[in-house]
Amino acid sequence: MKTTVKKPPMGWNSWDCYGASVTEAEVLANTNYMAEHLKEYGWKYIVIDIQWYEPAAKSADYNWGAELVMDEYSRLLPAENRFPSAAGSAGFKPISDYIHSLGLKFGIHILRGIPKQAVRKNTKILGSSATAAEIADIGSVCSWNGDMCGVDMTRDGAQEYYDSIISMYADWGVDFIKVDDIARPYHKAEIEAIRKAINKTGRNIVLSLSPGEAPICEAVHLSQHADMWRMTDDFWDGWEQLKKMFDYCRSWFPYVKEGCWPDCDMLPLGRIGIRSHGGDRMTRFTKDEQCLMMTLWCMFRSPLMFGGDMTYNDDFTLSLMQNRGLIEINQNSHAGRELYRKGNEIAWAANGEEGIYYLAQFNVGEHEIEVQTPLSFMGIEKPCVAHELWTGKENTGNIIKSIVPPHGVCLYKIKL
Amino acid sequence: MKTTVKKPPMGWNSWDCYGASVTEAEVLANTNYMAEHLKEYGWKYIVIDIQWYEPAAKSADYNWGAELVMDEYSRLLPAENRFPSAAGSAGFKPISDYIHSLGLKFGIHILRGIPKQAVRKNTKILGSSATAAEIADIGSVCSWNGDMCGVDMTRDGAQEYYDSIISMYADWGVDFIKVDDIARPYHKAEIEAIRKAINKTGRNIVLSLSPGEAPICEAVHLSQHADMWRMTDDFWDGWEQLKKMFDYCRSWFPYVKEGCWPDCDMLPLGRIGIRSHGGDRMTRFTKDEQCLMMTLWCMFRSPLMFGGDMTYNDDFTLSLMQNRGLIEINQNSHAGRELYRKGNEIAWAANGEEGIYYLAQFNVGEHEIEVQTPLSFMGIEKPCVAHELWTGKENTGNIIKSIVPPHGVCLYKIKL
Amino acid sequence: MKTTVKKPPMGWNSWDCYGASVTEAEVLANTNYMAEHLKEYGWKYIVIDIQWYEPAAKSADYNWGAELVMDEYSRLLPAENRFPSAAGSAGFKPISDYIHSLGLKFGIHILRGIPKQAVRKNTKILGSSATAAEIADIGSVCSWNGDMCGVDMTRDGAQEYYDSIISMYADWGVDFIKVDDIARPYHKAEIEAIRKAINKTGRNIVLSLSPGEAPICEAVHLSQHADMWRMTDDFWDGWEQLKKMFDYCRSWFPYVKEGCWPDCDMLPLGRIGIRSHGGDRMTRFTKDEQCLMMTLWCMFRSPLMFGGDMTYNDDFTLSLMQNRGLIEINQNSHAGRELYRKGNEIAWAANGEEGIYYLAQFNVGEHEIEVQTPLSFMGIEKPCVAHELWTGKENTGNIIKSIVPPHGVCLYKIKL
Amino acid sequence: MKTTVKKPPMGWNSWDCYGASVTEAEVLANTNYMAEHLKEYGWKYIVIDIQWYEPAAKSADYNWGAELVMDEYSRLLPAENRFPSAAGSAGFKPISDYIHSLGLKFGIHILRGIPKQAVRKNTKILGSSATAAEIADIGSVCSWNGDMCGVDMTRDGAQEYYDSIISMYADWGVDFIKVDDIARPYHKAEIEAIRKAINKTGRNIVLSLSPGEAPICEAVHLSQHADMWRMTDDFWDGWEQLKKMFDYCRSWFPYVKEGCWPDCDMLPLGRIGIRSHGGDRMTRFTKDEQCLMMTLWCMFRSPLMFGGDMTYNDDFTLSLMQNRGLIEINQNSHAGRELYRKGNEIAWAANGEEGIYYLAQFNVGEHEIEVQTPLSFMGIEKPCVAHELWTGKENTGNIIKSIVPPHGVCLYKIKL
Repeated sequence: MKTTVKKPPMGWNSWDCYGASVTEAEVLANTNYMAEHLKEYGWKYIVIDIQWYEPAAKSADYNWGAELVMDEYSRLLPAENRFPSAAGSAGFKPISDYIHSLGLKFGIHILRGIPKQAVRKNTKILGSSATAAEIADIGSVCSWNGDMCGVDMTRDGAQEYYDSIISMYADWGVDFIKVDDIARPYHKAEIEAIRKAINKTGRNIVLSLSPGEAPICEAVHLSQHADMWRMTDDFWDGWEQLKKMFDYCRSWFPYVKEGCWPDCDMLPLGRIGIRSHGGDRMTRFTKDEQCLMMTLWCMFRSPLMFGGDMTYNDDFTLSLMQNRGLIEINQNSHAGRELYRKGNEIAWAANGEEGIYYLAQFNVGEHEIEVQTPLSFMGIEKPCVAHELWTGKENTGNIIKSIVPPHGVCLYKIKL
Repeated sequence: MKTTVKKPPMGWNSWDCYGASVTEAEVLANTNYMAEHLKEYGWKYIVIDIQWYEPAAKSADYNWGAELVMDEYSRLLPAENRFPSAAGSAGFKPISDYIHSLGLKFGIHILRGIPKQAVRKNTKILGSSATAAEIADIGSVCSWNGDMCGVDMTRDGAQEYYDSIISMYADWGVDFIKVDDIARPYHKAEIEAIRKAINKTGRNIVLSLSPGEAPICEAVHLSQHADMWRMTDDFWDGWEQLKKMFDYCRSWFPYVKEGCWPDCDMLPLGRIGIRSHGGDRMTRFTKDEQCLMMTLWCMFRSPLMFGGDMTYNDDFTLSLMQNRGLIEINQNSHAGRELYRKGNEIAWAANGEEGIYYLAQFNVGEHEIEVQTPLSFMGIEKPCVAHELWTGKENTGNIIKSIVPPHGVCLYKIKL
Repeated sequence: MKTTVKKPPMGWNSWDCYGASVTEAEVLANTNYMAEHLKEYGWKYIVIDIQWYEPAAKSADYNWGAELVMDEYSRLLPAENRFPSAAGSAGFKPISDYIHSLGLKFGIHILRGIPKQAVRKNTKILGSSATAAEIADIGSVCSWNGDMCGVDMTRDGAQEYYDSIISMYADWGVDFIKVDDIARPYHKAEIEAIRKAINKTGRNIVLSLSPGEAPICEAVHLSQHADMWRMTDDFWDGWEQLKKMFDYCRSWFPYVKEGCWPDCDMLPLGRIGIRSHGGDRMTRFTKDEQCLMMTLWCMFRSPLMFGGDMTYNDDFTLSLMQNRGLIEINQNSHAGRELYRKGNEIAWAANGEEGIYYLAQFNVGEHEIEVQTPLSFMGIEKPCVAHELWTGKENTGNIIKSIVPPHGVCLYKIKL
Repeated sequence: MKTTVKKPPMGWNSWDCYGASVTEAEVLANTNYMAEHLKEYGWKYIVIDIQWYEPAAKSADYNWGAELVMDEYSRLLPAENRFPSAAGSAGFKPISDYIHSLGLKFGIHILRGIPKQAVRKNTKILGSSATAAEIADIGSVCSWNGDMCGVDMTRDGAQEYYDSIISMYADWGVDFIKVDDIARPYHKAEIEAIRKAINKTGRNIVLSLSPGEAPICEAVHLSQHADMWRMTDDFWDGWEQLKKMFDYCRSWFPYVKEGCWPDCDMLPLGRIGIRSHGGDRMTRFTKDEQCLMMTLWCMFRSPLMFGGDMTYNDDFTLSLMQNRGLIEINQNSHAGRELYRKGNEIAWAANGEEGIYYLAQFNVGEHEIEVQTPLSFMGIEKPCVAHELWTGKENTGNIIKSIVPPHGVCLYKIKL
């Protein structure tokens, strides 16, 4: 019985810019920026990504065997050298309070399981007489990070462990939890345990599952237990990955509905890679590619989690985040769907309020093409007026004709 | 500048029941049956398939090196032992005349190229001083039949050869030519030569290309030169092939338009295999599968070429051919399109006359499923009344819910 | 500095007949049989295979999560319900003593690592202040058995753990240890730790590594640390596996030398599968296949570990084990090598004492063939007399000609 | 009943240096060079490769549709612009006479089949009333050259065609015919026809079949009808191809015997690519690679057909061709065989005259290695003296130890 998240969450995540190493100062700077420039457009969540409990984290690489900050109950805590406000066992409460004071929401990333370090030290589990080694699912470990060991949900103390961490996060004021190493391979029992632990807190916390590809054969289970989940592996600023996203969106769009948000992953826009993969840079996507990406994410109604350090936004990047037309589609359209593919042409449609429709004409090829979309494919049988949202141009008739640049898109708002 | 074929051709083809061996008597029996039972529903073409020039043909297997009936100009002629009315150099004219006399139309199958036998005998080409060996594209042969050798269109006499056979067919009264061994591999120059030869006759002859898969990258060239073309290799009565047809239809539906009819291949229904592949039988498709197949062929607007010997039709088979609701969709709907796939559920939509829409809900899995299709995916934003065409049941609302049997379909006519 | 094992070990192993479930009575019955019938031919080792510490083991299937017999120092002990003589903390000492009293040698199977159960209970490590959870390599687990967790050799207490188990085995009088889950994937550090622990005991213990395929790129490391190692995954009584063994033997024969015995795996002969894979049966190999297999194992100089319950041996099976000619090749020949392959013919040669050579002509096809092997391929340049060892027939000349049945072999002893 | 070719043929072929375009002057220059420098070492054949009948040939690329020089009987003749001595219908007789006058032998390349041009013109067949188009196997064409069409050996006149060309070649004095496009795919009937035609001439003509891979399952048929045949596709001066040759030689060495010479293809040494593939160059093989290649070709007893224009030989290249030790192995050893592979080490052995053995130790890796070959693998059981043939160094003992450079070889002559 999860609480429903009514719109695709919009926010910022520290991974694309700072990998595993973001600091309190960087989080607060982005918080202030969002409050000032983006809050009114719907942007809301500030999410601290992986390894906030790792004092030595410096980049997107993990120090295998690192000593993590952990309490006596096997629970990881913020590294105070990176998050000074966590001193005195305050955890993320001070940061969370500050974010809330600006009208925003606070999220964190965690990895499935219990720290290996807790297993080795065989520390206690809050609310249970079991110890860490007793509940560990020895052998169930993440293939790409060495911090954790899975929890064997058949053992006494296992649910208590998840309850103990989630209730601590709720006490901190966490509004969003991205749980990693849980959706591929798919760990059903631990997903259920986390959902149960969230429900026990009584707090409205968004549950986001990673990494992808989440298995589409688990679409029903995902819908019942999570609010959003990754369709793909980590997404970065490369064209082949972006092109491939059309396949994921085609497969998943019939499952999109209120409270069920398949996730195209973070938007690797603006300044990224500062201490993360690929090196410090402005996004490698061209402007056409950025427009295409934003259009696809919005027509599909993916969560929008911005990946760059927003304080370095240039005008173009900021304009993408403040584009009310796009955000309206993302937050309020419905029935987003791929209409057809024809050579390098991919068309998507969505429906808006009374008498409003959207049509996106993507060009995934390397050459400009002329696209002609019959409105009849959208169920519309009379000539209409269509406004292109990126250029403001008008187009009328039964068939919407456009010249679309390579890697680009035309996006129409159509009034019956 | 081909003449436009305004509706998907509907007819009968001898291959599925008689392979390479159909006789005049069998053709006429099916002609009479069509005239009596099916003509008023739109069925029209009677097509004699491969090797009507092979006196010894007995089945769907080819006699490699067989002596073919050929005139002095390298042109193949009907084998008189199989088609007695062809005696006295009459060709197919008598059969054609008879078919026309009943208000139907006449078609034949040919293989790309010139007979190897003509090359060996080095016979003449009508209207040219070149001889068969001179125009042959030695080495360009069919991989599955040994009768012919390709024509090298760069040689003098090559176009004259195609002109000479097509004009003879026109003289016979042929209305439909299925050219085989031409669409996979794709023989561009010979396709163009045949189109040119047809145009020269001034006769309205449907040009159908085989076998598939015709290359989708040649969609434009196909549209300009042919009236219909095969999307797939030969289709028979097996479920896996039928299921796979959904992929072909998804790829090709954006290309369907007046005069351009991608072809799902013959309907292997009723009594087939009499002297063809798989043995004498009533179709192996279950009734659910037959309904599903007819629905897909009609929503996609494939040509409908019936493959069984119609004189053995049972009531169910005949009822499929006389289903006016289905035929209306096939002949007169537009914008047929796949809406989405969700697990084993595949939904298609098409638009009819003013305010009429069609929705097909297919179940390609092995278990009954409940399907719920939001009308918003069809662009419809208000509750509607929907009539199921196979059962007559009524369904209302914004979301069309159905229980669909395995390998089955529900097909709705929706009125706004 | 391992002690050298001078000849390929010959013995019996309980896996093929009793899976994980052999009992003391069965072990002793086979011991007595070997002492009486086979000892004089060189058969020596009695090896108890996997899970002798699992009270509930009933077959070759593993009970995941079973409660194992373990001492306070994380060391597994024989299940007394299966091995009554182990009562009173005697371990395998009584069985070992009995085997030694008959002039034979005693071996056991172990799995790499420390019991998961020890990690969960966080039990002690003898000779160290570390505990089980502290030395565990969490995440390094066997893919096909759930008993153990790897040991992280970088941790204090890790070497002590291996020392503590191996010295206990030495105290029991163990002469042979088959370590499983260690050679594929290849666990270098734990192989070295076990070698070191064996050396510390001062006891001459054969170290056998499983499962295969052991990586051939580790041939040097294997030679330095182990006495024998598996070239293949588990071998059973199927022809395709037997045929494939020729490929493994061709790759590995250059590495065979005193103390380095690549292993073709157990001989699945006689009565096998009693409580193991494939069901209770006499071997499925035909007599020809058994002769071929014994010939290949002996020419290659594989260890010979008999897999059936010997007390059920029929005359033919016993005759294979008592074949002095074969055993002589296995124990005392050298330079065993594949000579050539020619169609379904595979020829092997080996050298014996002064002026003695062996030639095996295998037929891996489905039809009888005539094989002609020029002795020049063995470096012999004069006509010789050759005695066929399976039939006693004589053959002379420069070229050895034989009629070899399908799946069969001719094996010659050649005197210069 | 072919005549036996007692030793692997040694000679020169024009392909590697001049592709399809060699001229009379170039042929004669190489003839003179061979007579002067190489004849006494056993080099004998001068072979003109493909398309000597193509006046416009300029390189290793083929002009598709080129007009070929052909007589009235469908037989191709030397292009007089390239071979002036062929004027007046002399064919290759003058060149052949000259070559013979120097004590050498003359060979030509032909393509399977009859010219397409003959089929198109439907020219006559000498000794038959059939015409070219009548005997053509339409559709049986070469995939990489457009000159010819296969001959259907079931037709009257087919054998006569092959007789007519081969007897003309015999009249010219041809001693060697390399027939191309015949061994892959394998054209059994035409191979037999050519063998029959050669036998009819009564002349001792070597029959060489191309291209490879000739199918090893046809080893018996090849042995009965041809004198040499290609094991591989075209071989050029690249390491990966050279390394791969070890696999071919391992598969084929058991089939090598007097009159049956599986062929490693031409030696791309000295100056090659002048008007052929890869551009004008001295061979890209390093000296080590050239020594390795020569050693393998000789131990295997491949035909030795030199590919470079010999008149440009440098000292090193000439020294390879004049290496009596190597040539002795190639011409007179027997039982050449792969002994074993061990990592990057591949060892070969062969036997010489009474008490002489050869051992080659190849290093196919990228780093120097120490190789130790026990003589027991060659059947030798006493210490011997071994002379390294490339360096002259001596080595004694039971085990031959060498330091072998990457891509290099040590080659020993061993005396018992």
